[in-house]
Order: sequence, then C-alpha cells, then structure tokens
Amino acid sequence: MEESRPLDALNHARNKIVMVDLKTGVRYVGKLKAFDIHINTVLDDAEEHYNGEIRRKLGTVFIRGDTITIISPA
Amino acid sequence: MEESRPLDALNHARNKIVMVDLKTGVRYVGKLKAFDIHINTVLDDAEEHYNGEIRRKLGTVFIRGDTITIISPA
Amino acid sequence: MEESRPLDALNHARNKIVMVDLKTGVRYVGKLKAFDIHINTVLDDAEEHYNGEIRRKLGTVFIRGDTITIISPA
Amino acid sequence: MEESRPLDALNHARNKIVMVDLKTGVRYVGKLKAFDIHINTVLDDAEEHYNGEIRRKLGTVFIRGDTITIISPA
Amino acid sequence: MEESRPLDALNHARNKIVMVDLKTGVRYVGKLKAFDIHINTVLDDAEEHYNGEIRRKLGTVFIRGDTITIISPA
Amino acid sequence: MEESRPLDALNHARNKIVMVDLKTGVRYVGKLKAFDIHINTVLDDAEEHYNGEIRRKLGTVFIRGDTITIISPA
Amino acid sequence: MEESRPLDALNHARNKIVMVDLKTGVRYVGKLKAFDIHINTVLDDAEEHYNGEIRRKLGTVFIRGDTITIISPA
Repeated sequence: MEESRPLDALNHARNKIVMVDLKTGVRYVGKLKAFDIHINTVLDDAEEHYNGEIRRKLGTVFIRGDTITIISPA
Repeated sequence: MEESRPLDALNHARNKIVMVDLKTGVRYVGKLKAFDIHINTVLDDAEEHYNGEIRRKLGTVFIRGDTITIISPA
Repeated sequence: MEESRPLDALNHARNKIVMVDLKTGVRYVGKLKAFDIHINTVLDDAEEHYNGEIRRKLGTVFIRGDTITIISPA
Repeated sequence: MEESRPLDALNHARNKIVMVDLKTGVRYVGKLKAFDIHINTVLDDAEEHYNGEIRRKLGTVFIRGDTITIISPA
Repeated sequence: MEESRPLDALNHARNKIVMVDLKTGVRYVGKLKAFDIHINTVLDDAEEHYNGEIRRKLGTVFIRGDTITIISPA
Repeated sequence: MEESRPLDALNHARNKIVMVDLKTGVRYVGKLKAFDIHINTVLDDAEEHYNGEIRRKLGTVFIRGDTITIISPA
Repeated sequence: MEESRPLDALNHARNKIVMVDLKTGVRYVGKLKAFDIHINTVLDDAEEHYNGEIRRKLGTVFIRGDTITIISPA
C-alpha cells in the first residue's frame, strides 16, 4: 500500500470548492485553482467570511501560505 | 537498541484516530492519512473541536504544520 | 490541462489595481508593479485603508511579504 | 575537556521522565522517547498540565519543536 | 517591456526620504542609505514616530528587516 | 585588532552562572553548560524566575533558542 | 559611488555606545562589541531600560538577533 502525502489531498481538491481558515480568524471559501509547497493558495469566485458571516465577495484571491491553518473541502 | 525518531511515532499512528491541537486553541480529531517533514497533516472524517465541544464535522482536512502544537492518538 | 501555480495569479494582476491585506489589519490598494517569491510586493498610486476608511495616500509602497495575508484584484 | 552540545543533554534524558513547557503555557510530563534537531519531541505515558493541574492523560504525544520553550528532567 | 522586481523600488529610493513602518506600530522617517535582501534597512537623520508624533530624533538607525511592514517615500 | 563574534561572548560564559530571559517573561538562572548556533542552551542547577521571584528549582534545563531574548552573566 | 550595506552601519558603530530596542519593549544601551548576520549582538557595560527607566545594570549581554527591532548610536 502506497503512503499518501499531504499535498496529494490538496491535489484532489483542485477545481473544487474549499474553505481556507487563516490564523486571523478570517475564512475564504472558493474554487481551489493553485497551491505550492509553501501552501500559497489561489481561490476563484472567493467569498470572505468572518464570525460566520459573508463579509466580501472577491473574484480571485491569492492567500499567503504562512497565514493558513487549514484547507478543507466545503 | 535502536533510537527512535519523532516521525516514527506519527508513522505508527497512520490510519488511526488522532487529535491534533493548534496554537489557536482549535482541535481536530480524525483518521491520520498523511504528514510530511513540516508536519503538514491530513485527517479524514475529521471533527473540529473548540472549548471542549464539537464545532464542525469536516470530511478531509489539510492542516498546515506550523500551526500544530501536538498530535496524539485519541 | 496544465496546472497553474499561485504566482501565475499575481502575474495576471500586474499593472492592475489590487488590494493587499496585512496581518496588522491594514489594507493597501494600488497598482501592482512588482512581487517576488517571498511575496514582497510593490504598489503604485497606493492608498492605505484601516477600519474601512482611507487613512493615507502614498505614491509607491514596498510591502514586506511576510506581513501579507491576501492579495486580490480590487 | 570536551565541550558538550545542547542535544547531548536531551540524549541523557532519553527514557527518563521529563517536563516539556510550551509557549502556550501548557506543560507535558512523560517519558522522553525521541527528539530531532528541530526539537520535535515524543513522550510516552504523557500527562498534560495547565495552571498547575493535570488536565488530560495521553498515551504517546508528538510535540512540534517550535512550540517548546524548555525541556527538563522532572 | 521588462518586469520590475520589488527591490528595484527600494533602489530608486536610495538617498531619498522614506518612511518605514514596523509591526510594533513605530514609524521611522529618514534618508534611505542601505538595505539588503532581508530588508534590513539603514536610515540617516532618522526620526522615530509613534501615534502620529515625533518621539525621538536619531542619527543613524539600523532596522531589522523582519520587523518592517512597509517602506514608502515620504 | 581582531573582531569578536557574538558566540565568543557565550563561550567565555561557559561553566559560569548566567541568566537567560525568554520572550514569555520567564527567566532561568544557572550554570551555562552548552549552546549551539541556534542559541539552544543548556543550564545546570537552574532556577526558574518569574516576576522577580524564584518559581521552581530545576536540575538541568534545555532551553530552545528561538524563545530566548538575552543571555547575560548573573 | 559605492553602495553601502546595512551591516556596514553596524561596523561603524563597533566599540561605540548604541541602543538596541527589542520587540518586547525592552531597550539595552551599551558598547557594541560584536554582531553577526543574524544580528545576534553583544554589548558591554550594558544597561537595561524599560518604560524610559534604567531597570538593571548588566556587564556583558548577548542579545538574540530575532528579538531586535532597531540598533542606533546612543
């Protein structure tokens, strides 16, 4: 049995809706378009959530990896 | 006697239920599917806990390693 | 289909108006002139926003990458 | 006289009870099983302490090195 | 058309008056004399500002790069 | 005249009593036994101080370098 | 005209009285004896200041570079 690596899970989520939580408490929900080994991440059709409410609608958003705590399919 | 390394402990926990505590006080409990040398970690069937209560059920969750304080079999 | 990388999204935004959010809660809005792999970023005709209000107008601003959380077309 | 290095002190503590203090104020007490150059550390038969009280009993715990302030024989 | 890099913007500001904002909320205003790839920066004839007021006049000041958020011509 | 390097000062303090201040406000006072380039440090016969009072007596303590602000002969 | 580098400014300050401000708000004033590329710094005849008052007189003090915000001739 082959052991999977963490970035494989992100690869499976490409072009799917994911939520990305930041250390600041802000959450982005959008279509996962790209990521790299630093976990720098790009979402399309992204929404910014804070305290459980949508705060802004954004087109494309580049998220710097070191501010991210988790990424999970929505 | 052979000396063990920290990642060996994580290898033994593969496919078992673990809890992962973050610096933010959030805890994830789920099946350990993958990790790497940065301690980036993927759980399946994950639950998010906060202040001792389940806050969300997540399918798969990718956790960025640098936000993690501990990983322990549940 | 070719997989895109996060910095491609920033390349597409060159010479366009973007907003850059910092960990400190400050936001800069201006024309994206340059960035590098650390996400050090330069904006022209930049405005500094805080708590939803314009606080200062700046000409050119160099933003150190590690203080940035997101970059998004305005 | 040979100069000792910091990791030598941890090597002497292998299989002994140590306490590990985290930046978060949490303390783990258990048998030191493994550590690496990042000071990622594994304890067996670990207890979690907070504010001077035992909060949880854990079996094995993997502690990410960058959250640790000190390690000391109990 | 040649793409510019972030440090080019700092090079154009050499020997000009810039303001440097730190993560701590302190601001330094002075003549930009030197910087390196870590954004370690040296100002001459520098003033330290805090909460919008001049707090100290300094001759030369070396600013460690990782405390800087932005650098902008004054 | 030969220029000294910072670690030379620590070398001169070997086997002498030093105090080590952490970012958390905790201070350790003990005999300097070992240090490395990350400033990971080992003290013997160490005392833990907080708010100007001795809080605990420890035998040997390993201090992770990145939590240290200063080291000074006591 | 030759461009100067940030560490040149520190070299000019060797054996002179400098003040070193830390992220914690503590300031050290003393004679600059040594520094390295991490900005690890050693002062002699150092005083520790806090909130504008001298808090302690120290002989030699080693200051870990990553806690420093600025270094400036006193």
